[in-house]
Amino acid sequence: MIPKADRLHNVTEYYFSKKLREVAALRKQGKPIINMAIGSPDLPPPAAVVEALEHTARQKGAHQYQSYQGIPPLRSAMAAFYHQHYGLKLCPDSEVLPLMGSKEGIMHISMAFVNPGDSVLIPNPGYPTYASVTELVGAKALCYELRASNNWLPDLEALEKQDLSKVRLMWLNYPHMPTGAAASEEDFKALINFARRHKILLVNDNPYSFVLQDHPESILSVPGADGVAIELNSLSKTFNMAGWRVGMVAGNAQIIQAILQVKSNMDSGMFLGIQHGAIAALESPKSWFKELNATYARRRALVWKIMDRLQCTYAKNRGGLFVWGRLPEGKKAIPFSDALLYEKSVFITPGSIFGTMGESYIRASLCISEADLSEVENRLQTRNI
Amino acid sequence: MIPKADRLHNVTEYYFSKKLREVAALRKQGKPIINMAIGSPDLPPPAAVVEALEHTARQKGAHQYQSYQGIPPLRSAMAAFYHQHYGLKLCPDSEVLPLMGSKEGIMHISMAFVNPGDSVLIPNPGYPTYASVTELVGAKALCYELRASNNWLPDLEALEKQDLSKVRLMWLNYPHMPTGAAASEEDFKALINFARRHKILLVNDNPYSFVLQDHPESILSVPGADGVAIELNSLSKTFNMAGWRVGMVAGNAQIIQAILQVKSNMDSGMFLGIQHGAIAALESPKSWFKELNATYARRRALVWKIMDRLQCTYAKNRGGLFVWGRLPEGKKAIPFSDALLYEKSVFITPGSIFGTMGESYIRASLCISEADLSEVENRLQTRNI
Repeated sequence: MIPKADRLHNVTEYYFSKKLREVAALRKQGKPIINMAIGSPDLPPPAAVVEALEHTARQKGAHQYQSYQGIPPLRSAMAAFYHQHYGLKLCPDSEVLPLMGSKEGIMHISMAFVNPGDSVLIPNPGYPTYASVTELVGAKALCYELRASNNWLPDLEALEKQDLSKVRLMWLNYPHMPTGAAASEEDFKALINFARRHKILLVNDNPYSFVLQDHPESILSVPGADGVAIELNSLSKTFNMAGWRVGMVAGNAQIIQAILQVKSNMDSGMFLGIQHGAIAALESPKSWFKELNATYARRRALVWKIMDRLQCTYAKNRGGLFVWGRLPEGKKAIPFSDALLYEKSVFITPGSIFGTMGESYIRASLCISEADLSEVENRLQTRNI
Repeated sequence: MIPKADRLHNVTEYYFSKKLREVAALRKQGKPIINMAIGSPDLPPPAAVVEALEHTARQKGAHQYQSYQGIPPLRSAMAAFYHQHYGLKLCPDSEVLPLMGSKEGIMHISMAFVNPGDSVLIPNPGYPTYASVTELVGAKALCYELRASNNWLPDLEALEKQDLSKVRLMWLNYPHMPTGAAASEEDFKALINFARRHKILLVNDNPYSFVLQDHPESILSVPGADGVAIELNSLSKTFNMAGWRVGMVAGNAQIIQAILQVKSNMDSGMFLGIQHGAIAALESPKSWFKELNATYARRRALVWKIMDRLQCTYAKNRGGLFVWGRLPEGKKAIPFSDALLYEKSVFITPGSIFGTMGESYIRASLCISEADLSEVENRLQTRNI
């Protein structure tokens, strides 16, 4: 057979891809597995979203190719959404680009700005795709360590002692997954100054800013961000549309243009019905967020109880779709998670899959019904694992 | 601003992206432009497709993340489609992978098998994305010339005289766009032997095999193809679903696995409603193809009349979604196309955008109503341009 390209040698199969096969096999054996590992919203999107999809799919012309940039009303809805919620004015024609999910944006941005041999700063712990995409474009993933003691923010002083000459891009993700930590305007300012000094493009991946957050924040609203920072955003968690694949990248027009240059050579515009569904979602009233967060808050209270039973500690002032629990002294994430799975039929993500700094943690999702969470709590009452 | 990556320096804005802005501007000035340039099917997909989408979008769980590999019923429907129409048995679990349109597959395949510095064989004339993706992955596009005198097939003897040591991949596209030429089983066999001798992965991009073709052909049905050739296929033209973004790649399981390794790091599974719409399309009865082709045959007869008026010559035994017309002696594609646009408000694609071998040709799409085609014919009756 034709050999694979070298860039694939360092990219391994995604942890979940393997582990979920094992979970499926356990279920087949009759084990009543409750999966608390995945952040895939189980609640439906606003009703208007499905109605807009259905209405559009019945229109003539709905089935033809769409523009790479998305229809103008979608870009306008995205700009209006940024204005309403983050207080930021974006030009809908040049400063916002719809994507088929923000995940594909990680590749587009890396292709647009990172050369083979360059380095990219990546959070540890953090979303594993930043590192694998960096490897795929032939660059080096340079991890920066995040610690609870520093509120899960990068230690810029320590970073500046390193050789940053080859660094072209820095991935940020605030509110942060898996820890739920937020960055303040002051934190973003320090990051922007750091990036400006070292000619680094900052990319804030921002899909969690509405989940259990009272005040959604965007790095683009921070003075000095223009031309230094861009932002990925997504409808997946904000509107329970993870499967629809709708995201966006926003920021400086020249940067967006370079990303479009990559994107237009890789894919085509998204299905018109999905675009109109996305517009309906973006126009949701503030009550949408309030109701959704009330559900997540009830679930989080149950997850806290589960963490208590597991003798894990956690911060109560965190947002996002997960609870990040610190394991009892001396415990390691993978054996702890496996023991839970095999002894209690409960699957919680080991923190180590997000990097070495997650080795003493587990991550529990809030995308689980209250009934299932209560069942988990009951299972754990018998004895601690 | 942060400079763009080097890989973008050779990738220019797509011809249509620029030209369609001009067409839009002309329309704004009141010019009654008829656009015969784009191969975006204007007819609706089978009714069952939209019904399946609507039904699915109303189900619980329809909005969550989907597997990278697509749901098993979609892979089974793709395998059954290959069996029914190409007489080929594929394993639905390992030999077929759904894609968000076959265009994204061009990038996935190139990332999976082409190293920076490698060369890739690319048809001239041919679909421009093969070359731009090759540049994006840091490889060299080595064009092979296709001529009417050789039935638009590569001259393998001439190719073998070149240094092929760096060639990893060869793009084929039969039935061929823009010319409509087909490859016989003998032609495919010769290509497979050539590829095997030089350790080249053959990729046949096969979106046109049902359009004005009586017998759809797949390179994978040819003896010896396994492990040497893979195939991209698409629902865009076959079922009028270009905007839905559903395609597939089929072939040897190990090769598919490598492509999945790239894909799973770049995107997520496609919207469940689109997957069920695709299943409904793939299960269409043979009468679907017959009726669709009857429409295209009527349109093609009108396009032939238009070509006659333009004093262009063409082969009548071609399939596909376009008529490829040779210009009158001495004429060049871009000035000819521009004159038609400015003098007659008719936009037909200049053949040169598909490569130097298309400089004496124009490409007319069949995705235009008979009324519009008759109007074009009327406009041309006044005088030849």
